[in-house]
Amino acid sequence: MSSSSFRFTLTGTDGAARRGEFATPHGVVQTPAFMPIGTQGAVKAIRHDDLEALGAEIVLGNTYHLYLRPGDELIARRGGLHRFIGWNRPILTDSGGYQVFSLAERRSITEEGAQFQSHLDGSRHLLTPERTVDIQARLGSDIAMVFDECLAYPAERVTAAASMGRSLRWAARCRARLIDIRAGVAQGIKATNFNQAQFGIIQGGVFQDLRRESVEGTVAIGFEGYAIGGLSVGEPAELMYAVAEETAAHLPPEQPRYLMGAGTPTDLVECVARGIDMFDCVIPTRHARNGQLFTSQGRINIKNARYAEDDEPLDPRCGCYTCRHHSRAYLRHLYMAGEMNAAALNTLHNLTFYLDTMRAIRDAIAFRTFETFRQGFLRSASVLPLDS
Amino acid sequence: MSSSSFRFTLTGTDGAARRGEFATPHGVVQTPAFMPIGTQGAVKAIRHDDLEALGAEIVLGNTYHLYLRPGDELIARRGGLHRFIGWNRPILTDSGGYQVFSLAERRSITEEGAQFQSHLDGSRHLLTPERTVDIQARLGSDIAMVFDECLAYPAERVTAAASMGRSLRWAARCRARLIDIRAGVAQGIKATNFNQAQFGIIQGGVFQDLRRESVEGTVAIGFEGYAIGGLSVGEPAELMYAVAEETAAHLPPEQPRYLMGAGTPTDLVECVARGIDMFDCVIPTRHARNGQLFTSQGRINIKNARYAEDDEPLDPRCGCYTCRHHSRAYLRHLYMAGEMNAAALNTLHNLTFYLDTMRAIRDAIAFRTFETFRQGFLRSASVLPLDS
Repeated sequence: MSSSSFRFTLTGTDGAARRGEFATPHGVVQTPAFMPIGTQGAVKAIRHDDLEALGAEIVLGNTYHLYLRPGDELIARRGGLHRFIGWNRPILTDSGGYQVFSLAERRSITEEGAQFQSHLDGSRHLLTPERTVDIQARLGSDIAMVFDECLAYPAERVTAAASMGRSLRWAARCRARLIDIRAGVAQGIKATNFNQAQFGIIQGGVFQDLRRESVEGTVAIGFEGYAIGGLSVGEPAELMYAVAEETAAHLPPEQPRYLMGAGTPTDLVECVARGIDMFDCVIPTRHARNGQLFTSQGRINIKNARYAEDDEPLDPRCGCYTCRHHSRAYLRHLYMAGEMNAAALNTLHNLTFYLDTMRAIRDAIAFRTFETFRQGFLRSASVLPLDS
Repeated sequence: MSSSSFRFTLTGTDGAARRGEFATPHGVVQTPAFMPIGTQGAVKAIRHDDLEALGAEIVLGNTYHLYLRPGDELIARRGGLHRFIGWNRPILTDSGGYQVFSLAERRSITEEGAQFQSHLDGSRHLLTPERTVDIQARLGSDIAMVFDECLAYPAERVTAAASMGRSLRWAARCRARLIDIRAGVAQGIKATNFNQAQFGIIQGGVFQDLRRESVEGTVAIGFEGYAIGGLSVGEPAELMYAVAEETAAHLPPEQPRYLMGAGTPTDLVECVARGIDMFDCVIPTRHARNGQLFTSQGRINIKNARYAEDDEPLDPRCGCYTCRHHSRAYLRHLYMAGEMNAAALNTLHNLTFYLDTMRAIRDAIAFRTFETFRQGFLRSASVLPLDS
């Protein structure tokens, strides 16, 4: 097969906010969508069936982690990532670039690619654009990402420009490699999902003209969708919103736009308002394991002593298993006692909050009431800490 | 209310094996029964709804842990342990004695009770027979256990005799205290389950005449049920079976018999064959977290490299979520990657194996085919390590 079966359909807009869906070999995903992170082939502390029941339609897998352990070749022999982990809905994989820059040791970047040592065992690896395409072809995700250079924040303009240029050249190599794989002329690659789509990634730091140049170059190569990378890396939220807005405005409207690594519930609402269709973030799951919980009344730090005798559910407006069955007092006890059940119950709740928020966002766009929803959401306590 | 609503009904026997049920304020439990251990108010790595779906009809809570954290007074203010943890089925609580002897620091035992320092913060505590009754009355478990002295194995006869004698005197004090609580004449006790039953505990080490003396003394005090304590503490399995058999034979047939702290799947089958009705053990849950899994084909150590590319379920004959959705290869990957999802999926499986075994045991007794079942179970690979 020489092309992807990936199809994005825009079903409605409200201002810059977009309501749509995309079709993949493993099913349809409604947008705007939030993708829980399943780093090592599992979203931490939650089962696949619970994720599905919560309405998660797509999860993200981390290529860097899966490449190092258990290995993309092993996963390909299992029939690909979906079969290996037993998740039958869509999967997006990143390219590994971000983890090489944030997690790996002794990395050195050249035009060829990134050399680094594994954070697990110190073993030496070289990831090139072509190799990250090959690895993702073996994993067989529904959406693969190109390999890009991750720029630290803040960065000088000259650094951002050079990095963006290299990412563009790497993107072209990634696309060429995928075309070879699709054509069956790539040697030694056992692709497990021939209908895999590939997204380009816009870079350019916080420099709007560099972002525009990156958009032009990336769209010229041509991908099934476009991500905005290099944000949510420490810059102020308002700056992230401004860059996302400007960049999104220049991307082709008929293709999905994915803001990588964002964000807080407020970030989701604000970036949907600026034309973003897809998000991924560790916040709901990682915060859950740290006892930081999102509720309609504000953020809760369950460790706080004020909850020791609080018989209320985490969020009286939430319908999740945790809120239907357990009190803040019990959840605090589990957390303080170091029970892993705390992580499981908290993860279930935080992901419910995120996925419910996405559902409300989609409904508001469909009914063309998104601006009202947004104002209400930002005014509500949802975004403020209840504990101070 | 001046007595317990606890009722045990023997519905069938097959040799010494007994099929029955007991009624508690929170529902009926079919026997022989296995009680998963919910030490700190949660069975580790599994949700209450999953436990119920697996067929767990009763769980065990540890008084020592709950007394230290979050505290029995706090739990009583929440309405008792059932309401605090959101588990509406029966709960049995131990007396804390075993943990005082195995976990606490700087303990000293006198006729009055046990002084010790908390393993959590070094704080000093005195647990007397009366206090353990009070604590369990506040927790409001459906079955409370008397406070007994836990004898180390091996022990001299003279030590075992003295210890057994003290446990008998403590048992009498526990019963007297509960009678006062039931009569409403115990000061300062907010009992949260007025229909709480209380079980005596037979001691006497491995000395059959001491066990018989303990049975006589304990039955003379009179309890709703009788436990056999001081076994599964390191003695050979055959010795445990012999003591359990002899002791059970002298206990009143119209009341339930609970073998504390046992055991392996083989122990369950062998002790049911000797007249035991109830069991609790950390093995299925703790082994699960350590990657030791029970299957109909033998025990599996999921860390073993031979499972790295094994696409089969843990146990092809098992119908649990884990076996229906995941391969050994995936479970090994999760374990090796340190994902807590491994603990959750493994716990679900091991508890399924235990609770399915108990169901098969109950059916075999009801159909009077228990001896055939037992021989088949012992011949099967179930009890042997698949890995060696």
